[in-house]
Amino acid sequence: MRDEGLFSEGDVVLVAVSGGVDSCTLLFLLKKFSHVLRISLIAAHLDHKIRVNSWKDRSFVEELCKRMEIPVEVSEVDVPSLWKGSGKTLEEVAREVRYSFLEETARRVRATKIALAHHSDDLLETVIHRLVRGTGPLGLACMRPKFGAFVRPLLPFKREEIEEYAKIMGIPYVVDETNYDLRITRNFIRHKIVPLLRELNPEVESAVYRLVNISTLLRNFIEEIVDEFVKENVEEQGEMDVFEKPKSDYLLLEVLRRLLQRRYGRVPEYEKMEVFLRNSNKVSFRTNLWTSVYIEKSYDYVAVGKTVFQGSYKLPVEGGIVEIFGFKIKIKVNYEGEKERLWIRNRKPGDRIVVNGKREKVKDLLIAHRVPTFYRDRLPLLVDEEDNVLWIPGVCVSDPLKERRIEVELLKAPKGFLKGG
Amino acid sequence: MRDEGLFSEGDVVLVAVSGGVDSCTLLFLLKKFSHVLRISLIAAHLDHKIRVNSWKDRSFVEELCKRMEIPVEVSEVDVPSLWKGSGKTLEEVAREVRYSFLEETARRVRATKIALAHHSDDLLETVIHRLVRGTGPLGLACMRPKFGAFVRPLLPFKREEIEEYAKIMGIPYVVDETNYDLRITRNFIRHKIVPLLRELNPEVESAVYRLVNISTLLRNFIEEIVDEFVKENVEEQGEMDVFEKPKSDYLLLEVLRRLLQRRYGRVPEYEKMEVFLRNSNKVSFRTNLWTSVYIEKSYDYVAVGKTVFQGSYKLPVEGGIVEIFGFKIKIKVNYEGEKERLWIRNRKPGDRIVVNGKREKVKDLLIAHRVPTFYRDRLPLLVDEEDNVLWIPGVCVSDPLKERRIEVELLKAPKGFLKGG
Repeated sequence: MRDEGLFSEGDVVLVAVSGGVDSCTLLFLLKKFSHVLRISLIAAHLDHKIRVNSWKDRSFVEELCKRMEIPVEVSEVDVPSLWKGSGKTLEEVAREVRYSFLEETARRVRATKIALAHHSDDLLETVIHRLVRGTGPLGLACMRPKFGAFVRPLLPFKREEIEEYAKIMGIPYVVDETNYDLRITRNFIRHKIVPLLRELNPEVESAVYRLVNISTLLRNFIEEIVDEFVKENVEEQGEMDVFEKPKSDYLLLEVLRRLLQRRYGRVPEYEKMEVFLRNSNKVSFRTNLWTSVYIEKSYDYVAVGKTVFQGSYKLPVEGGIVEIFGFKIKIKVNYEGEKERLWIRNRKPGDRIVVNGKREKVKDLLIAHRVPTFYRDRLPLLVDEEDNVLWIPGVCVSDPLKERRIEVELLKAPKGFLKGG
Repeated sequence: MRDEGLFSEGDVVLVAVSGGVDSCTLLFLLKKFSHVLRISLIAAHLDHKIRVNSWKDRSFVEELCKRMEIPVEVSEVDVPSLWKGSGKTLEEVAREVRYSFLEETARRVRATKIALAHHSDDLLETVIHRLVRGTGPLGLACMRPKFGAFVRPLLPFKREEIEEYAKIMGIPYVVDETNYDLRITRNFIRHKIVPLLRELNPEVESAVYRLVNISTLLRNFIEEIVDEFVKENVEEQGEMDVFEKPKSDYLLLEVLRRLLQRRYGRVPEYEKMEVFLRNSNKVSFRTNLWTSVYIEKSYDYVAVGKTVFQGSYKLPVEGGIVEIFGFKIKIKVNYEGEKERLWIRNRKPGDRIVVNGKREKVKDLLIAHRVPTFYRDRLPLLVDEEDNVLWIPGVCVSDPLKERRIEVELLKAPKGFLKGG
């Protein structure tokens, strides 16, 4: 335990004790080594009310802690009634309740660590569960030995080893009969699938423990790369994030997931991302993720979020500096005689501009200048009283503008607008 | 198939046909779309002699190809006799023989692609097999849709779908009765484990197909990062490779594996690497991998290979430039009177050098100058006729050297020697 660096001197450790063999053994071991590790212990027990006799477990834990001279924090939550109509499985609800109980209790009693009794059989079961339910490779980095305040000192050991140790040391515990209910996914995996895997490899827990260890290192590595990419390359543009498309599809995928998580707190199913990845070599491509939220690629840039501009605007300008949608433009009007009235507005279908004696379509000019699709409707155009387009910032000025005493300048453009997108 | 970019116009595709439903359906489908894809087909069948009646499959495939007007390449290999005493499983031997038959045949008939009939059930079975046997997260990137010349057009489909299609289209095939032999690992997984996984999630193949897809992207990404790191940061130093320790343990792990694979064609078990990783924050640490091969960390640098210098050398120097173990030193002797005799040699236990009037231990000076451990025994010391150390290149010159008419210069040092390691 010291080797893994799970505890630091002076830690106040909240130990989650259900009363089962794993958690009782954990409590026993931590008590035994608390002097060497220089940590102090508090036990925590949640009565989840899933079984009618769950109060028995509670009494057992209270009695045990009393005998071991360890303070114990107990709480009860009626998990079955929370579960009804939640749309989740009973296991999921129980898990959420348990973790929030532990976190709250830790805060209250000022515990610096929370110790969980998970072992390598739990790890194997979790990996199989995730694999079957669907996960990416980083999702295999589950049940990390250390995650935030949570630590899992028993993770390298097998259930068998723990039970053996408990027997030798005479550690008392209660048996949870729901452990044998095969309707519970975890039990189905434990009692039906794992024995078959063990037939193929008696050391399957170690194989999976190794996989999870390496996956955890890999996950940390990828998270750092993504953090750095986001920090260095992503520009927040109002309701969307824009960045230059990285060469690696994997990095693209993870960056998109990170940005969506940050903005909307959720990530779409992989299939939608895959459609985008498969088409991301096209000049322009857009995938709808959910209501109004898109991933859009145009030239070398990617935008994610509300990339489609659905409004319209027309603002009178008196001259001066205007900032809108990441564009910063400067307009200076040298009035003589009658005051000229000017507006900026977004483009409209059919917009044209007179340049070098030709009436060009605004759309064609935007394409010729490789302006990414997601900027085209946001871009502020300067128009006169008759709604003629005088200036497309960063692209061209019209002949009429040249003839008038109006000075224009694009001071700032959003990421990828000018670099040929 | 076009969407995935598996084939290019003009491809000559060698189709591996065992005679089973999967490969016959693949042959049928490729034939059907060969005009659209603009590819030409050659079938390939290997009689593996594992079953006494394997010649029947061969006749069946030959007859089928004749009717379909597809040329067929057939060969036979006595896999069971190759297997005996090979120390491998029959399945492994059969697999190796099959792949080398396909590669050789492709070369001979100038095929540009080799099509395999693997589907998503095969993928699921392979993932379970690897998981149980032990694999890292990148090892889940198995059965890639495209790998070198190999392509797997049926990978997105389930066995069930393929069988259904074969039935509807009346595609003929033979049934391999060894498919039901549970002593074969793959069949055990197929018939005993997969049905249980399907009870938990009827779409488990899709879940795993997705996992493998993402793992493949991830694997490509990591391989590029490792390639780049090796190219930019690793210096080959005779029998070892030296590089500055990257911050990420995962990157360190993969770089070490890449370098060991490159130099020795093998990689140690993860446990040995893990011992090194766990200790890699120490100032100096060394792990033995196998005979004379170590990973060694010292200060900020890592060396891998034969890091321990087991020989000794003593070379006379007349002056001039000497290159040894990545050190390049220049010695110029301005003779006056009697010719002075000088040598360079590696250090010996107890070596001392007189600097600023003090007799210092060479070892202490190397430590004080943060010279990585793996350079200390290789470093060329300049000594005189009485074997007194005159110069430790990059570290210090002795008082006697200063008094003599000898000029010394360290022209080049190996990676990390001077930067404080």
